[in-house]
This record gives sequence, structure tokens and C-alpha cells, in this order.
Amino acid sequence: MTSVDALWQARYRHPAPMDLPDSPVLRALMSHRSVRAYRPDPLPEHALPAAIAAAQSAATSSNLQSWSVIAVKDQARRKRLATLGGNQKHITVAPLFLVWIADLSRLARLATAEGQTHEALDYTESFMTSLIDAALAAQNATVALEGMGLGTVYIGGLRNHPEAVAAELGLPPLAFPAFGLCVGYPDMAHPASIKPRLPQACVLHREQYDPQGENGLIAQYDRDADAFQREQNLPSRAWSRTMIDRIATVAGLHGRDTMRATLARLGFPLK
Amino acid sequence: MTSVDALWQARYRHPAPMDLPDSPVLRALMSHRSVRAYRPDPLPEHALPAAIAAAQSAATSSNLQSWSVIAVKDQARRKRLATLGGNQKHITVAPLFLVWIADLSRLARLATAEGQTHEALDYTESFMTSLIDAALAAQNATVALEGMGLGTVYIGGLRNHPEAVAAELGLPPLAFPAFGLCVGYPDMAHPASIKPRLPQACVLHREQYDPQGENGLIAQYDRDADAFQREQNLPSRAWSRTMIDRIATVAGLHGRDTMRATLARLGFPLK
Repeated sequence: MTSVDALWQARYRHPAPMDLPDSPVLRALMSHRSVRAYRPDPLPEHALPAAIAAAQSAATSSNLQSWSVIAVKDQARRKRLATLGGNQKHITVAPLFLVWIADLSRLARLATAEGQTHEALDYTESFMTSLIDAALAAQNATVALEGMGLGTVYIGGLRNHPEAVAAELGLPPLAFPAFGLCVGYPDMAHPASIKPRLPQACVLHREQYDPQGENGLIAQYDRDADAFQREQNLPSRAWSRTMIDRIATVAGLHGRDTMRATLARLGFPLK
Repeated sequence: MTSVDALWQARYRHPAPMDLPDSPVLRALMSHRSVRAYRPDPLPEHALPAAIAAAQSAATSSNLQSWSVIAVKDQARRKRLATLGGNQKHITVAPLFLVWIADLSRLARLATAEGQTHEALDYTESFMTSLIDAALAAQNATVALEGMGLGTVYIGGLRNHPEAVAAELGLPPLAFPAFGLCVGYPDMAHPASIKPRLPQACVLHREQYDPQGENGLIAQYDRDADAFQREQNLPSRAWSRTMIDRIATVAGLHGRDTMRATLARLGFPLK
């Protein structure tokens, strides 16, 4: 396994500024790369329950536990979800596809069964809580799965067609498919690399938010990210230019500019 | 360190149904408990950079990296944030308080500097992406910190007063303080316990969403969670009853029913 120092070098493209603790946990976290080439081999039987135990061990707001996950193994269903998720072939190849659900429906069922209202669930805050809960759980599952030598990649593309995904998965109202996660053994014939990130000083602020100095740091990152692209035989492009083009108009949202109306139809009026 | 089998037993209050891989990573993930009693001792110098490297190693939608974090050590500022976060004393005692920011402002600055629009940032989808990115990053940091023997607890209470928190931290528009995280050495005179969670079958669905059988599982969880409460000398109460009371009316949102208007004022119109 690669050392924490080497992982830091790959992530930031400069040496770590101090001695870091070289623990298996930190190595596992810093080793993440998104895997898009999988072997079709099935997972060991223990992988899913272990990952879900890790997911449920994450913090959850006020113990509401307002998330669910659908484990999709069926090949035909994965193929349909791959189409809905922007024709991402790895969803079809990886043997397991997890769809993470911001799920307020379980709480609603509890209330309804007792003849109670569930007014609080209509509010933006409740949806946010549920979305954060789902993300914390999913990330713990991801780290657990990667720790078993498996590869993963998040699929935000499911948000291109949330209603069709909800229908495919038989979701009740108040359950939103937030994102997917492919899981499988990485195909080592097409290994994935650690992607460089912004310098820490860009995202980490001390005491108060301070964007001073950010321009120079981003210019450095543009050069580093471009060098990485060229190493990977990918198109040469500055990160900041890609970002600016992406956010300039609603076109960059790939149809997701209707999300608020979609959420309302799925049972989230976001009051 | 406790075995994975023992951690499963604590989390679900029944033995693991199969052999699980007993790795340091899985043990670290399953060991989580929210720590609310801290020693005031400062952290080792490497803790924060290592945690941020873990955070930045998490996946981020389209490499947008649309989050930031403010590291607050100043005692007076932590005290003010503790007041804003619902008078939670541990914010004042733990030596480090991290505030995780759903941050679209960096992307907006990039666009503005180039004379470009950033229309996409006005949409609900962009806010959701940013919130998910922040949560994935925060969870990786949490796992890294806990792996170093430190304790953490998420502070959703910051969402009681997001505008006051934003002012305290000097946040620009398009930066939302999503939640806080206390970090410090656990005070072993007041050890925290692993909290039981819902049975896996409640949150994990196969192929399609299926709430059949959920009632019996939740009744079992109500008994398990109540037994845990009594072991901890906490009030005896069924989980489902607590949840139902919490969501019945807007009162359970502790003033956060104004979140949508607050977000608009912070620069997120959620189109």
C-alpha cells in the first residue's frame, strides 16, 4: 500500500509540509479515486452488510436516520438505470449499484400509522437534513468498500431523471434518489489515478473566510490539473476554464434546472 | 481496539449474521460515537492538515469542489458560535470547531473575474450538489480524525441561525454554513457509547423499495433503543414516539421553518 506521503504528493503535487501519521485509516481515505472500469465478478457476500453497517454508523441528525439505500444487482435494471444516468456504461458492468435515497417517507409512515400529522417534513430544512444524512452514510459505505479492495464511483447523473429513477425503484413519495454508487472490483487493465485537488489554503480558512491569495493558488492548480490531464492522455484544459463554462448558463445543469418542480412532485414542497 | 463483531453487536444489539472482515478501516468506521465531553488539550499539529487531505480526497461532483471549511480555534468565537448553535457547551470546550460550508462563492468569483455570468448557481440543483460535496468531505475528515483517536460531534444547531453564523465567519454570499463539527480528545471520565441503529432491513432494500415488514423491525428497534437509553441512565422513550412528536408540526424545526427565505438572503434563490 502506498504511504501517506506518496498519497499527499499525488493529491497536491507537492510534498507534505510536515510529518503525517501513516495509519491504515488515513491511507484508505487518501487513496480514493473514482473507478469507471470494473471486472464483472460478484462481490463477497459480506461486502454489502459490512458497508451498510459502516453507513449506519455515521452520524445522523437527531437520530432521524432519514435515508435508505437500494441495492441493485439485476442486470436489466442496472442497464435501465445506466441509460437514465447519462449512459454511463460502468453502471452496467459493475456488479452492484447502490442508489442512495434522501428518505423522509419512513418517518411519514410512522406518523400516519399513529394518525399524526408530519408537517415538519414539508420544509426545506427537513429535505436538507435528509440529504446530508444520506451523504454521510454513503461516504462511510464508500470508505468501507474501498477498504475491502473494491472500487466505487458516485453517479450524480441519476439526478438527470429523478422521477424515472424513482419509478424504476418503486420509491414512495418523500423519497428522493440523491445519487448512485457503482461498486465492483477495479479492472486493473485500466487503473484509475488519484486526481489532484485545490491547494488546502483554497478550501481551509482560519477563524474567518478569507479568499485573499486564492487567485494565485487557483492558477497553480490550473497548471497542476493540466499536467495531470496530459499525463492521463486527456484533453489539456485549465480547471478554472472548465468550471466557468459549466456554471455560465443553465445549459451546464443538463436539464436539472427543473429540480425544484421535480422535488415538489416527489413530495418535497421545500417550504 | 474492539473487534468488528463486538461493534456490530453494539450497533444492532444482536450478533453479526456472518463472518465480517476485521480490518482497521471497518473497525474505525463502525466505532463512531458522538462525543460531547472533551479535554481542552490542543490537537497535534498534523491533525488538521491530515483531516483536510482526507476531506479533499472524497469524491466531488464534476470536480466542482464546491465546499469550504472554517477552522475556529479562538475561544471567544467558539463561545459565540456555541450560543448560536443552541448553547452546546462542548463547542466551547473542544479546542477545534470546524464549520463546513456549502460554498458556491469560489466558482462565482472565478466567473466574475472573467466577466462571465454564473446563472447555473442560482438553481436548487447547484445548492444540492454543494451540500452533498460538503457532507462527503466532512465525513472523510471525521473518519480521519476519529482514526487519530480524536472525538467528534456534528452540530446541526448552526442551522438555527445561519445568517448570524455567516456574519461571525465573514462568509460571502453563496456560502452557506451547513453544519459544525467539534474536534478534540474525548474526556474518558465521561465516555460516549455506540448508539444502536435501525435494523439493516429497514434502510437497505433489494432491487426495489419495500417497506413491508418495517413495522415489526421498528417495534424491535424501539425496544432495543429503549434498553440502550436505560443502560445510559437516560429517559425511557420509544424511538418512533420521539420521531413522531418531532415531525408532527413546525415546532420540531426549532425555527428552521424559515430556511428557504434565509437561503435566498444568503444568495441561494433555489430556482
